[in-house]
Amino acid sequence: MHTKMQTPWEYRYSQRTQRMKASAIRELLKVTEQPDMISFGGGFPAPDVFPVEEFKKACNYVLEHKGAEVLQYGGTDGYVPLREMILRHAINLGINVDIGNILITSGSQQALDLLGKIFINRGDRILVESPTYLGALQAWNAYGAEYITVPVDEYGMITEKLEAALRIGPKFIYVLPNFQNPTGTTLSLERRKKLIHLADRYGVPIVEDDPYGQLRYEGESMPAVELLDSQMRVQNGTYTGNVIYLSTFSKILAPGLRLAWVIAPHGVISKLALAKQGCDLHTSTFNQIVAHEVGQHGFIDRHITVIQKVYRERRNAMLDSLEEHMPEGVKWTRPHGGLFLWVTLPEQFDTTEMLPEVIQEKVAYVPGEFFHPDGSGKNTMRLNFSFCSPERINEGIARLGRAFKKKIA
Amino acid sequence: MHTKMQTPWEYRYSQRTQRMKASAIRELLKVTEQPDMISFGGGFPAPDVFPVEEFKKACNYVLEHKGAEVLQYGGTDGYVPLREMILRHAINLGINVDIGNILITSGSQQALDLLGKIFINRGDRILVESPTYLGALQAWNAYGAEYITVPVDEYGMITEKLEAALRIGPKFIYVLPNFQNPTGTTLSLERRKKLIHLADRYGVPIVEDDPYGQLRYEGESMPAVELLDSQMRVQNGTYTGNVIYLSTFSKILAPGLRLAWVIAPHGVISKLALAKQGCDLHTSTFNQIVAHEVGQHGFIDRHITVIQKVYRERRNAMLDSLEEHMPEGVKWTRPHGGLFLWVTLPEQFDTTEMLPEVIQEKVAYVPGEFFHPDGSGKNTMRLNFSFCSPERINEGIARLGRAFKKKIA
Repeated sequence: MHTKMQTPWEYRYSQRTQRMKASAIRELLKVTEQPDMISFGGGFPAPDVFPVEEFKKACNYVLEHKGAEVLQYGGTDGYVPLREMILRHAINLGINVDIGNILITSGSQQALDLLGKIFINRGDRILVESPTYLGALQAWNAYGAEYITVPVDEYGMITEKLEAALRIGPKFIYVLPNFQNPTGTTLSLERRKKLIHLADRYGVPIVEDDPYGQLRYEGESMPAVELLDSQMRVQNGTYTGNVIYLSTFSKILAPGLRLAWVIAPHGVISKLALAKQGCDLHTSTFNQIVAHEVGQHGFIDRHITVIQKVYRERRNAMLDSLEEHMPEGVKWTRPHGGLFLWVTLPEQFDTTEMLPEVIQEKVAYVPGEFFHPDGSGKNTMRLNFSFCSPERINEGIARLGRAFKKKIA
Repeated sequence: MHTKMQTPWEYRYSQRTQRMKASAIRELLKVTEQPDMISFGGGFPAPDVFPVEEFKKACNYVLEHKGAEVLQYGGTDGYVPLREMILRHAINLGINVDIGNILITSGSQQALDLLGKIFINRGDRILVESPTYLGALQAWNAYGAEYITVPVDEYGMITEKLEAALRIGPKFIYVLPNFQNPTGTTLSLERRKKLIHLADRYGVPIVEDDPYGQLRYEGESMPAVELLDSQMRVQNGTYTGNVIYLSTFSKILAPGLRLAWVIAPHGVISKLALAKQGCDLHTSTFNQIVAHEVGQHGFIDRHITVIQKVYRERRNAMLDSLEEHMPEGVKWTRPHGGLFLWVTLPEQFDTTEMLPEVIQEKVAYVPGEFFHPDGSGKNTMRLNFSFCSPERINEGIARLGRAFKKKIA
């Protein structure tokens, strides 16, 4: 046998592995874990609002009464009572679906990966907002997706530019209509209808990603794209929608559970479940049963009002601080909900280049270019306002303002 | 807008979706959830041995003291103290690795999927035992894998036939050396060495799947293929092995947690983590911290002796019942550990064809052909002995014996 053997693994990676690039931004943001750092980089919920006591009660109850079930293997589709709970919520919103339209996933990131797996052939084009959610690009890059972009303004995706993009022939449209990640903007009702209308005309389906829809701090709730679409489509009592809807327990309960769901036509749910079986068999039975126990008697609705109060205060703190500390020429969005706002600096700035210096000042953000599949948006950045207390938000924005002013000077 | 719209989803599935077939066997086995059914079909641990009290204590403790951490997002690589616990175990076994060699996955099924993602191009050949684990085939079919098979006898993969298979040029070798799923057989020490030697000569790496290694009910422990391989390969203190090792908490703690791990060279772990980030961001923080809390003070080692006692009794019950109830011409393996044994009927039998009739008798198994990538093994079946009590095992095997005798008559 040889004495100096090399592992041959490195010569054996698949073609798709070449397309999976280490996220430079995640490397940069690793330093933000230092305790004196004020990070607006992540998308973390406030730990202050985690319902720890309810989880404790639920864990004790389900282990006491369902120990053999919660620790055992479960079905790929998900825990039936949890799916029924989601179903009731969907039906309350007016969406005409049944339990066969609902799949539990291990976080929304898994739903994005499964969608890539069942829909994307290498070279397929996906129509996305620009900027759009980083994690979707990361999931779909591995399947060789290419992107067609439609820009976003303060009312969400600019649907006037949608038709030209649809003619290029995307596989599907990916949209975050409520308090979009990263910009915080919300798609107007008129544009929702226009989106549905155009998608239908060109025969292109829609993936609606809605992690924050219930986290609204001002203004009126907007109907989901899926709801508007489904109102036109129920035939013989069966939902045959043109929309795949994603949402999650990460922002309304706790991200540590990795629990999310998909609502889609029966045929799509079957394919997703089949793909999921090969990916992780099923989502943790324990977490599903605990989440159902915590959520079943209306707790989540009550808890959301607590989250709204806390996050509204933090959003306001960030908007006030920006007003106070930002130099002339800096603009930002004023989101009505969600976790993020979007800052645009004067054209000559490059937020990726600036980040290491800014981190020296013990504050961090995510540079905007990472949310643009075409690498544009170099003078933009995403700020998270859910994770830090109002005091730390004030201090962090002051630090950011000082760093920008230094740069201008 | 049209009044009769069709959802276009079904025309948009990816090529790989065509290769993901609904598992006929899972459909068949759904009926085995009826309470009067005795199922030897699944691979379920005995719920009787789930350490429910320890989980209750651990949940209370970690929610009380680490509530903000356990419910929050975590790193993709996994919870550091849990990886350190796995590391200590590996080092105790003599494997020279560090924490950068360890990745937490959402069950071993996810590890199989991630391996497919980073290594398998469509048409790549994977060398597998015949029969082999169903879930690996399911994971890799989605990536367009083809298979080269090497048969198994009572000492595991027949390594005399390995060299000819290696010349075909497999991407990697997949092997379950201990109490193999489905046959229950264990790869002999001599064959382990032969496997490592030939894999090295042909430059082909090995994936060692070891979910049951610690569940031995008789005989001496066998060194892991990874250990034997690594003893030859440590250079300048860095592990540069030719083996990727998979194991899981599903069989030694609880499958409902979906917690498993991979030990591999640093470069491979980086690629797997990158792929995992796009698949589900990370494995549930809550479950990782709870498992660490339950496992950290040697509990798992103590618990394994409890499991061994219960499963040894059940294996013995099944072997005794087979002796008593099986007609002439039926053969079976005598596993020294694990969850399964393998039954071979006379040539003319077709266990898939027989299953619906057998289910009428309120007993079930998994037909052997599903574990054969080439569709052979029609007269074989897998029986699980971990899930049912000895009394139900006796009754179930008696039913099976009656069904077979009827078939012969």
